[in-house]
Amino acid sequence: MLGRGVWSTLRQGLSRGLSRKVGGWASGERRKMDIAGIYPPVTTPFTATAEVDYGKLEENLHKLGAFPFRGFVVQGSNGEFPFLTSIERLEVVSRVRQAMPKDKLLLAGSGCESTQATVEMTVSMAQVGADAAIVVTPCFYRGRMSSAALIHHYTKVADLSPIPVVLYSVPANTGLDLPVDAVVTLSQHPNIVGIKDSGGDVTRMGLIVHKTGRQDFQVLAGSAGFLLASYAVGAVGGVCALANVLGAQVCQLERLCLTGQWEDAQKLQHRLIEPNTAVTRRFGIPGLKKTMDWFGYYGGPCRAPLQELSPTDEEALRMDFTSNGWL
Amino acid sequence: MLGRGVWSTLRQGLSRGLSRKVGGWASGERRKMDIAGIYPPVTTPFTATAEVDYGKLEENLHKLGAFPFRGFVVQGSNGEFPFLTSIERLEVVSRVRQAMPKDKLLLAGSGCESTQATVEMTVSMAQVGADAAIVVTPCFYRGRMSSAALIHHYTKVADLSPIPVVLYSVPANTGLDLPVDAVVTLSQHPNIVGIKDSGGDVTRMGLIVHKTGRQDFQVLAGSAGFLLASYAVGAVGGVCALANVLGAQVCQLERLCLTGQWEDAQKLQHRLIEPNTAVTRRFGIPGLKKTMDWFGYYGGPCRAPLQELSPTDEEALRMDFTSNGWL
Amino acid sequence: MLGRGVWSTLRQGLSRGLSRKVGGWASGERRKMDIAGIYPPVTTPFTATAEVDYGKLEENLHKLGAFPFRGFVVQGSNGEFPFLTSIERLEVVSRVRQAMPKDKLLLAGSGCESTQATVEMTVSMAQVGADAAIVVTPCFYRGRMSSAALIHHYTKVADLSPIPVVLYSVPANTGLDLPVDAVVTLSQHPNIVGIKDSGGDVTRMGLIVHKTGRQDFQVLAGSAGFLLASYAVGAVGGVCALANVLGAQVCQLERLCLTGQWEDAQKLQHRLIEPNTAVTRRFGIPGLKKTMDWFGYYGGPCRAPLQELSPTDEEALRMDFTSNGWL
Amino acid sequence: MLGRGVWSTLRQGLSRGLSRKVGGWASGERRKMDIAGIYPPVTTPFTATAEVDYGKLEENLHKLGAFPFRGFVVQGSNGEFPFLTSIERLEVVSRVRQAMPKDKLLLAGSGCESTQATVEMTVSMAQVGADAAIVVTPCFYRGRMSSAALIHHYTKVADLSPIPVVLYSVPANTGLDLPVDAVVTLSQHPNIVGIKDSGGDVTRMGLIVHKTGRQDFQVLAGSAGFLLASYAVGAVGGVCALANVLGAQVCQLERLCLTGQWEDAQKLQHRLIEPNTAVTRRFGIPGLKKTMDWFGYYGGPCRAPLQELSPTDEEALRMDFTSNGWL
Repeated sequence: MLGRGVWSTLRQGLSRGLSRKVGGWASGERRKMDIAGIYPPVTTPFTATAEVDYGKLEENLHKLGAFPFRGFVVQGSNGEFPFLTSIERLEVVSRVRQAMPKDKLLLAGSGCESTQATVEMTVSMAQVGADAAIVVTPCFYRGRMSSAALIHHYTKVADLSPIPVVLYSVPANTGLDLPVDAVVTLSQHPNIVGIKDSGGDVTRMGLIVHKTGRQDFQVLAGSAGFLLASYAVGAVGGVCALANVLGAQVCQLERLCLTGQWEDAQKLQHRLIEPNTAVTRRFGIPGLKKTMDWFGYYGGPCRAPLQELSPTDEEALRMDFTSNGWL
Repeated sequence: MLGRGVWSTLRQGLSRGLSRKVGGWASGERRKMDIAGIYPPVTTPFTATAEVDYGKLEENLHKLGAFPFRGFVVQGSNGEFPFLTSIERLEVVSRVRQAMPKDKLLLAGSGCESTQATVEMTVSMAQVGADAAIVVTPCFYRGRMSSAALIHHYTKVADLSPIPVVLYSVPANTGLDLPVDAVVTLSQHPNIVGIKDSGGDVTRMGLIVHKTGRQDFQVLAGSAGFLLASYAVGAVGGVCALANVLGAQVCQLERLCLTGQWEDAQKLQHRLIEPNTAVTRRFGIPGLKKTMDWFGYYGGPCRAPLQELSPTDEEALRMDFTSNGWL
Repeated sequence: MLGRGVWSTLRQGLSRGLSRKVGGWASGERRKMDIAGIYPPVTTPFTATAEVDYGKLEENLHKLGAFPFRGFVVQGSNGEFPFLTSIERLEVVSRVRQAMPKDKLLLAGSGCESTQATVEMTVSMAQVGADAAIVVTPCFYRGRMSSAALIHHYTKVADLSPIPVVLYSVPANTGLDLPVDAVVTLSQHPNIVGIKDSGGDVTRMGLIVHKTGRQDFQVLAGSAGFLLASYAVGAVGGVCALANVLGAQVCQLERLCLTGQWEDAQKLQHRLIEPNTAVTRRFGIPGLKKTMDWFGYYGGPCRAPLQELSPTDEEALRMDFTSNGWL
Repeated sequence: MLGRGVWSTLRQGLSRGLSRKVGGWASGERRKMDIAGIYPPVTTPFTATAEVDYGKLEENLHKLGAFPFRGFVVQGSNGEFPFLTSIERLEVVSRVRQAMPKDKLLLAGSGCESTQATVEMTVSMAQVGADAAIVVTPCFYRGRMSSAALIHHYTKVADLSPIPVVLYSVPANTGLDLPVDAVVTLSQHPNIVGIKDSGGDVTRMGLIVHKTGRQDFQVLAGSAGFLLASYAVGAVGGVCALANVLGAQVCQLERLCLTGQWEDAQKLQHRLIEPNTAVTRRFGIPGLKKTMDWFGYYGGPCRAPLQELSPTDEEALRMDFTSNGWL
């Protein structure tokens, strides 16, 4: 059942969303929302009985609030959103909105398989307080997800969303790369402000920056493993799972890149690659949550079918941090 | 809102499910449910405004009821289930139950990403009248979907399902093959009766038949393109999108295989490959629905982001049927 | 240096090839060479110092000559042909010609990356006694190997070859499937008699049989794992690595298929899948050669960089044979 | 037949190679050869009758000699080496040695499928004047190319090579990534000086730089599309097909990176991505050679089975240059 928190926020959010729309892209304002910076994709804490643990979520947020992040991504791939009910998805966003510092951005994942459901979820996300929506590509029918189909999908969502939309391409999960030509077309939409690209192909990222240069369109790296290289080709920030545990370091890497200290940036980047791979591709969310436990956050269990790490995997995970001097 | 149909069926189904459980695997009965035969995976008709058109669904069912199918698969990949709400998923199954002949089986797709949601949907599917549940592999976190994780998932679902469970592997949609060792382990569960395998790898299918031979475990081909070959290696039936338009022919192919008329079977199989590919991999559900329109059923539009075929694609689709003598 | 054997055979082969050409496809004869039946793809034995061991090759051939094979494939993927010099490739074929029974066919792999080299190797293979050439798809520039490029390649080779040409598609090695439309076009060439298809996709194989039906074009399964299914969809034989060690059984499977004893065929097929996978995809040529040692043939070492099996792998290999009753 | 050029160079090269070995890694010298800088991978010009056109090769070299390249790669993937005979491979290298400026490096591709053939080709390449050998991964048996097998292969080659060895990973052609753990192990070999990595995964490249930091091991980007990003993560140069036509620009990009002018570097990098993709992944060597014709070099035809571009493709190729201001 929908908790009190989400309902009251829904009411508030509704008015915020409306006012924002009036003052936003629909009114012909020229500049798109600035989303530059580092975001941790927040994990969803669960109790031992697999209920969402909102208390632990807030505790984590308070700790993460200490870092100079630009904001938080909620319901990204690391948020286990496919395992949450619609109500839970909204409630989590609502709680994060309340727990996080006022001056930071809340980017909420609102992607669903159908266009209609995505529109509805996006509107609801705005109502519970999201500043922008991150919309993952639909993927179950990937064989039919042509550029035309994806352009149609995202245009519809952006047309109807009261908040700015960020495209989200994450081929490791979806088996689908949002094609560059679709990204370029979509960049012209006044309510589409950027893309979170988790594929790690910097040639592609550079090309997207190049081809969308006149559209005020912003590229965020989807992982800390290629953050430096992404800045080098023109990205303006990153959504980095690793920032959930090495928040200071990822923000330091951002600063080194922005201030042109490339040598130090390179050294730091190098030491972040293995830990980053460990909490993403290699050991997934179970690895990320286990590491959060080590670093003073609440990681806890994942929902099934995600399984806990084996002792061997846990040892390898630890080694990826210790060998780089982080544990 | 939940229609009257689904609620009344939920009540009836609840008692059916319970009685079935008492008389089913839980009571120590030895034989698993026999699921041999041909099933069309029913499409979900939509109105021009993208509402589920239950009237057209029933009309299609009445027409399909004329063929010697073993039953119907509802909410398979061709049913656009990822685009339906939970309520719609149940309502569609409920309506099919009412519209279809009493002596046929209703296999309902109940797969969700989380184990818990899959359990709940499976129980609900039983309540609205499904005879068995077809459970697709979770796939968003495919990098973590090890055999152990999948065995855990399906065991939990089968433990708690009041109706038999059919595994469902469809790598074209999920990017994931349910590993043979997991299938073999799961075949030993008394409430797991078989697998629908849509991958088209008959070496794998033969191996599954071989390794599960003592478990009374049944393999269904997931496509008409390799139906003959599947029978040859020991499959007992098929869930064939093509049966939605060439129902008589697919059933004839079954009969030729079962009666050992391999030469005629081969000739017929050959003429079905291109039409089958056309309504599956090549043109997807939009192709299948367009063809249904040609063959006297209601196909109609898909929900977005699936797009209509272009005129060029439609022409190529038609050619795949005409060149093989079916149009 | 070229041994005496190859030179004398080159001379003889030259005249054979010429006379064959005069009496062959070039003269307008209608029927293509019949290549139906089972072929082991002969391995190349090496000494401890990695020299070709022609003596062991002949011994193996004498033993294999006892089975009702249609003939032998020499320089298929299992022949380690990419590790042989041109001279060695010809010498091996020459020796096999001399050692093998006169009434059997010798199919020699003559594929190279360039069209010109393939033509030359094909002509040379004819000269040293090959009855037909099996020509693998060029693959290093697979991104440019369009249907048009492959049709051009094979047409040139077939135009200039004094012996019939068999297409050879083996995606596990080449990363490339010879497209069906290219196969259909090439089937019309009077000197292209068939295809060895090792991909294992029986839908594709059935379609090839269907679309080339009027061209007297023959399909050979490239592996014993899907031999039964291949016969079911219209193949006329197989080139089976497993036939190097279970020759009698593979020939028995052929007989069961040809005489319509599908039930017994299915049982036998099932017991061959794991051993077949073991000596092909799972453990490769090192696995096949190790098994040959067990079954009374000379397997011996591979050329580097192929490595010997580890003891653990060897144990798993043995299990794949013992658990199916073959060891 | 081997021309005079190659023989005389073989003689000279032999003594150079020997003397180099005495003064090289074998004598315990600590520093590895410095290979930092930009290299065009030279194409092999052919006449209308598909003979190697050595005159045109020399003309191209003279023109390319004007740019501040570090040297030339001969027989890389762009050199159509799989289409050349062994003699042609050596003769081409010999001619390049003679035609190129004395102060530049000649890196010769010497990879073959077998370890033994690769050793022999590497020794011969040294004899005809190569300063270092670039050795592509063997790939036909990619299913068996474990880290252990590849470590064994490269160790053997490096042990026996009179010149330094550069590893070469090009998954688009080989379907195989040289695993990072193998690279790290091999970096410790005193005669292995670096890797040319064409995969474009900068996370991987950064990790290789990080893990081989103490081994004096150098990473070269295998393409101009990710050259800036590669420098950012620690690469020291690049082997760039695009340098065959936009040599000045690629060298300018190098200079901007080395002098820390990242903003200008980024702008230039952006304008090189599409032209680079056009002459590599998109249109391959036929695209590169066509562009060479436009830019005042001799491109000419490729050897079959590579086909000329269609007029449509040629138009698209031209557009990739014009739209970025290069034509």
